Amino acid sequence: MASPEIEALTQALARLPGLGPRSARRAVLHLLKKRETALDPLLRALGAVSERLENCATCGNVDTTNPCAICADPRRDDRALCVVEEVADLWALERSRLFPGRFHVLGGRLSALEGVRPEDLRIDSLVARIAAGGIDEVVLAMNATLEGQTTAHYIAERIDRFPIRLTQLAHGLPVGGELDYLDEGTLAQALRARRPLG
Amino acid sequence: MASPEIEALTQALARLPGLGPRSARRAVLHLLKKRETALDPLLRALGAVSERLENCATCGNVDTTNPCAICADPRRDDRALCVVEEVADLWALERSRLFPGRFHVLGGRLSALEGVRPEDLRIDSLVARIAAGGIDEVVLAMNATLEGQTTAHYIAERIDRFPIRLTQLAHGLPVGGELDYLDEGTLAQALRARRPLG
Repeated sequence: MASPEIEALTQALARLPGLGPRSARRAVLHLLKKRETALDPLLRALGAVSERLENCATCGNVDTTNPCAICADPRRDDRALCVVEEVADLWALERSRLFPGRFHVLGGRLSALEGVRPEDLRIDSLVARIAAGGIDEVVLAMNATLEGQTTAHYIAERIDRFPIRLTQLAHGLPVGGELDYLDEGTLAQALRARRPLG
Repeated sequence: MASPEIEALTQALARLPGLGPRSARRAVLHLLKKRETALDPLLRALGAVSERLENCATCGNVDTTNPCAICADPRRDDRALCVVEEVADLWALERSRLFPGRFHVLGGRLSALEGVRPEDLRIDSLVARIAAGGIDEVVLAMNATLEGQTTAHYIAERIDRFPIRLTQLAHGLPVGGELDYLDEGTLAQALRARRPLG
C-alpha cells in the first residue's frame, strides 16, 4: 500500500531494538506528518553521526571523535581503569557519573557457546595499556552473568603479574530490591558478601 | 558524556512515539554498533522519504508520489469513497485489504476543546469530490469517539443532498471481546445493533 520508500523506512526502523513492525509504522506516520520537526532533524542527526562515527583506538568506545571524549578529557583520572563488556555498559556507568577514571571496552564476553575466544575481545590491548604503566587500579565491571564472570576471571589471570589493585563491582541486593522477589543467586551473593553494620 | 552529535541523535529518536529516552539510547547504541546494517540503511531510507515526501492533493494521504499510490491505482473502485480522520486510519484499513475503493483523509476531527472547526479539516474538498459525481457510496470511518461521531454527523449533513449511499462502520463487540471485560458503551451499542441469527 505505502510506497517502496516508506516501506523501506518502516523496515529499517522496525529493526531497531525496542521497535516492532507496529511501533515502527506509528513512528513513520509521525515522521511523515511532522516533516520539519521530526523527519528532517532525525535525518540531519543521523547524517552527522554517520559522517563522523569512529571507534576510539584507545578504549574501544564509539564516538564522533578518536580518541573519544572520555579518553581525550584531561580531567579524568589516568590511574583508574574500568573494564566493561560493551559500549552500552560504559554509557550506563557514565550516566551514574560515579567513576572518575578511564574505560576499556572489551567488545563482548568470552563464550564457549557463541565461540567467542580471548583473541576476539580487546584483551591484548587492555594488557598493553596496563603494561605501559601509570595505572593503580583496574575495576572489572563485567555483567553478573556466568559468561561475564568467566571473562573477569580470565582477565584477572592475564593481568595478575602487574602491581595494580584489581577490583570488581559488588554483587548483592539492588536498590529497592525486596527479598521476597529476588532470585536465590542474588540472595546467596548478598549473604556471602554481608558486611558489619554501621 | 557522548558527543553532541550522538546526543542530538538520541534526542531526535526519543521524540518518536513509542520510544522514550532509555529505548532511544538503546537504539542509538545499536545504530553505532551496526553501521553497515542498521545506521546507513536507515539514513538512506529516511533520505529517500524526505526527498520525495508529498501530500496527495486528491485524498490527503502522505506518500512519495502525488497523486498517492491509492489514488493512482487504476484497479480501485472509483464508486466507493471511505472518509477517515487521519492517515494512520487509512493505513490501518489498507492493512485489512477489505476496502476496494478510494479514500479521503480529513486531517483530524471536529473538536470544540481543541478548537478544530470544519474549515480546519479537508471537508470542502470532500464535498467537491462527491459533487463531481461518479461516487455511489461514502463510508464514514470515523473513530468510535464522541469527536469522531460528531464529525461523522457534521459530514453527513453536509453531503445529504447528494444521491449517494451513506454508511458508517458497524459498532459492537470486537473480535475476541468478552462481555465481562467490555465497557458499557460498547455493550449498549452491540445490543442496540443486534441482528437476527443465521
